[in-house]
Amino acid sequence: MSAHMSPEEFRRHGRQVVDWIADYLAEVESHPVRSRAEPGEVRRALPDAAPEHGEPFEAVLADVERIILPGLTHWQHPSFFGYFPANTSGPAILGDLLSAGLGVQGMMWVTSPACTELETVVVDWLAGLLGLPGRFRTDGPGGGVIQDSASSASLIALLAALHRASGGRVAAEGLRGRHTLYVSSQTHSALEKAARIAGLGSANVRVVDVDPGTLAMDPAALRALLARDRAEGAVPAMVCATVGTTATTAVDPVAAIGEVCREHGVWLHVDAAYAGVAAICPELRGLNDGVAEYADSYATNPHKWLLTTFDCGLLWVGDRAPLLGALSVLPEFLRNAASAGGSVVDYRDWQVPLGRRFRALKLWAVLRWYGAEGLRAHIRAGVALAAELADRVAADPEFVLFERPRLGLVCFRPAWPGLPAEDADRATLRLMETLNAGGALFLTHARAGGRVVLRMAIGGTATERRHVEQAWDHVRREHSALKVLMR
Amino acid sequence: MSAHMSPEEFRRHGRQVVDWIADYLAEVESHPVRSRAEPGEVRRALPDAAPEHGEPFEAVLADVERIILPGLTHWQHPSFFGYFPANTSGPAILGDLLSAGLGVQGMMWVTSPACTELETVVVDWLAGLLGLPGRFRTDGPGGGVIQDSASSASLIALLAALHRASGGRVAAEGLRGRHTLYVSSQTHSALEKAARIAGLGSANVRVVDVDPGTLAMDPAALRALLARDRAEGAVPAMVCATVGTTATTAVDPVAAIGEVCREHGVWLHVDAAYAGVAAICPELRGLNDGVAEYADSYATNPHKWLLTTFDCGLLWVGDRAPLLGALSVLPEFLRNAASAGGSVVDYRDWQVPLGRRFRALKLWAVLRWYGAEGLRAHIRAGVALAAELADRVAADPEFVLFERPRLGLVCFRPAWPGLPAEDADRATLRLMETLNAGGALFLTHARAGGRVVLRMAIGGTATERRHVEQAWDHVRREHSALKVLMR
Repeated sequence: MSAHMSPEEFRRHGRQVVDWIADYLAEVESHPVRSRAEPGEVRRALPDAAPEHGEPFEAVLADVERIILPGLTHWQHPSFFGYFPANTSGPAILGDLLSAGLGVQGMMWVTSPACTELETVVVDWLAGLLGLPGRFRTDGPGGGVIQDSASSASLIALLAALHRASGGRVAAEGLRGRHTLYVSSQTHSALEKAARIAGLGSANVRVVDVDPGTLAMDPAALRALLARDRAEGAVPAMVCATVGTTATTAVDPVAAIGEVCREHGVWLHVDAAYAGVAAICPELRGLNDGVAEYADSYATNPHKWLLTTFDCGLLWVGDRAPLLGALSVLPEFLRNAASAGGSVVDYRDWQVPLGRRFRALKLWAVLRWYGAEGLRAHIRAGVALAAELADRVAADPEFVLFERPRLGLVCFRPAWPGLPAEDADRATLRLMETLNAGGALFLTHARAGGRVVLRMAIGGTATERRHVEQAWDHVRREHSALKVLMR
Repeated sequence: MSAHMSPEEFRRHGRQVVDWIADYLAEVESHPVRSRAEPGEVRRALPDAAPEHGEPFEAVLADVERIILPGLTHWQHPSFFGYFPANTSGPAILGDLLSAGLGVQGMMWVTSPACTELETVVVDWLAGLLGLPGRFRTDGPGGGVIQDSASSASLIALLAALHRASGGRVAAEGLRGRHTLYVSSQTHSALEKAARIAGLGSANVRVVDVDPGTLAMDPAALRALLARDRAEGAVPAMVCATVGTTATTAVDPVAAIGEVCREHGVWLHVDAAYAGVAAICPELRGLNDGVAEYADSYATNPHKWLLTTFDCGLLWVGDRAPLLGALSVLPEFLRNAASAGGSVVDYRDWQVPLGRRFRALKLWAVLRWYGAEGLRAHIRAGVALAAELADRVAADPEFVLFERPRLGLVCFRPAWPGLPAEDADRATLRLMETLNAGGALFLTHARAGGRVVLRMAIGGTATERRHVEQAWDHVRREHSALKVLMR
């Protein structure tokens, strides 16, 4: 304490932490999924000021157990079905640990060549596993990169798109005139955030109609909106098609949208943050129809459903030139022979921050531990459990299944016969709150077809059939109890 | 393999990795500091495609040793003096390991309350330790947040500044008219990158003159430039003052710059990425003169010199309203009672990405293990070693010391008597290349006062007096050898 932790002390405390995590993962089911902490409760349990004198590491671990754990919503609980999965896994945790221990910076090739080259290797490996086109490979005109999230990937894609749309002028001159971004009502809010960050403003995020049944973007509506905006003098910068929307995993028709983009010379970004990794299974590769022919950029997150601890979002571009044009700034202190020679990749120019952790290690560890077949087995297990749950929901007259799931997300709602839609939606949210407060499972909601639906996203690392079955039993039981209460 | 790693397998492999890191940290001096890998060498040593079948974890560890290690530049080597330190430390590594093992998401309070509240606690603790003003505390009008880097912090500050400068219109309408950002020639390139990302363009990054001796920004020149730009119709959005520039740790006169900002109603961001943490020592707190009175935002990186493994950059704002105005987008799937009630912080609105790791754990572990006195001892050790080295350089007629270091960075160059400046600069770079190729130490260069200087940044976690002394011996020896060669 107060002195540096020696390698031998690190060895001892490291084993304590490894044991603690192993125990946590083995017993995670014993916790209520959603934290029961009240606002301010964790904060009040901690001192107002940092300690003056160092403390033993055991004191930190004891407070993790006593103060932090009760304040957590346990995303690794096998009955966590909220949002989308945020898979962690043994090999990913250990890959991340190696990264922290090595403590190298991968901002440029020269600052730690293996950090850059292993990243190139794993993003190319994954492009191969997902069947992405050759131009996305680093030995082609484009390449892939690890981002912290699909939000950042969307922003980077938009910046590259603006660069291309402006003929390269935006980097020097800034935005001039009206630039527009095309999304649907189902597109992730990260795109609106990206448009704000890039200076377009929310008003220039143009919302294209969706098919009211499938919630997929309507290419004809996109065509009409693009034509109208251009006639009014706007410069369309990018269209974002989504493969697997956040609300319901709707899949936009990428090929048809791509045709429209091609007609208008607009950048097509495909946001497959959740669903994209499923293309590792040949039978699900149809999700990506049109990507090979039309996409200028493509994003998917191994930190959601592919067992790689957050943060590990992947972004590929078909042409790296506009991306580098948008983001490369070379000050004196970063000049070096390798970069000047042009024979290396400097990933600092592919992202917002300059510094970079060695994130490729965890993805590499996952790909090697599981192998392609192990990753396919994980995806298929989630898809199968979702299909089984959907069967149960569909067979129950008390519930309405939103649609047959293609992936791991099941959306449904109680029928609430006799209740007006608005009251029924309130009752559905009340059911969700009761379920989440109970602690046995956690789920979230969305709006689909104008109605509140409950979302059960299946695909946690530890989730098995019994957890899904127990969750469904809970939903039915609480629903029955609520019906009695509401009589 | 191919199946999930069980908690017991994780326990076993986790110990292997902990042991491997402990051994690495104990023996890191045995490696050449800079990697000797040629471009493509690591990549060629790895297979072209991901394995179909899973492999034992030992295979990954063996390849880390065989393929990755030789491709690393060892930032934790005690003779790494390049760029700025990127401290890792035992408690930080273990805090990060806990974060990976828990695998929770801190995008909103409700998604894991302790993740948010511990972050609030540690940023407030650090604000106290650094003597930052009360408005930067979370219980004031502003607050602090952990970012991945000072680059991202600069971007976030710029977005908040643009929001304020536009009266809140930019979020909806986008940038209209000419917005300008003020830096000096010594400001980090992250600011130009931020201006590009935010849509201002490099041309609207206005470079204010510096004092040719100290390389600090000239407030009078700033005042004149601001007045001229406003007269020409520009809307000045932000001024960035730097406390501890990247090239030479120059300190801009924050108070005088702040006066100018106040006259013109312009947002003042203080980038103290490297130097800011030194204010934990009362005798160095003068670095931050003017911050309490004038700064709208302030950034410093515990992942540089404060023993907290990358990524851990801190950003404080004096008023969180423009930041939230710039970045908050609330889609249906993120609506929840706690956020709607306004009693909690949702850090997703304080950053580019939506998702967030539990980064507060590593900073908390560092603050508790070392205590304030341990952190001060680390900073003071670096400052003292830099002063000793500067004495040696100043006393050696063969070398020119750029200036007396106030912190941990020593800038100097060989005198090369008789050589024209351009040839001398080339010779200095050649000396650096020879030193770095030798593997015994690593340093980088900058341009200061029109000349190439060598930078030795002292402050690595494992750096002791002997490493600095050996480095200086190496510099003198290689310099003598080069002089003979060049005769």
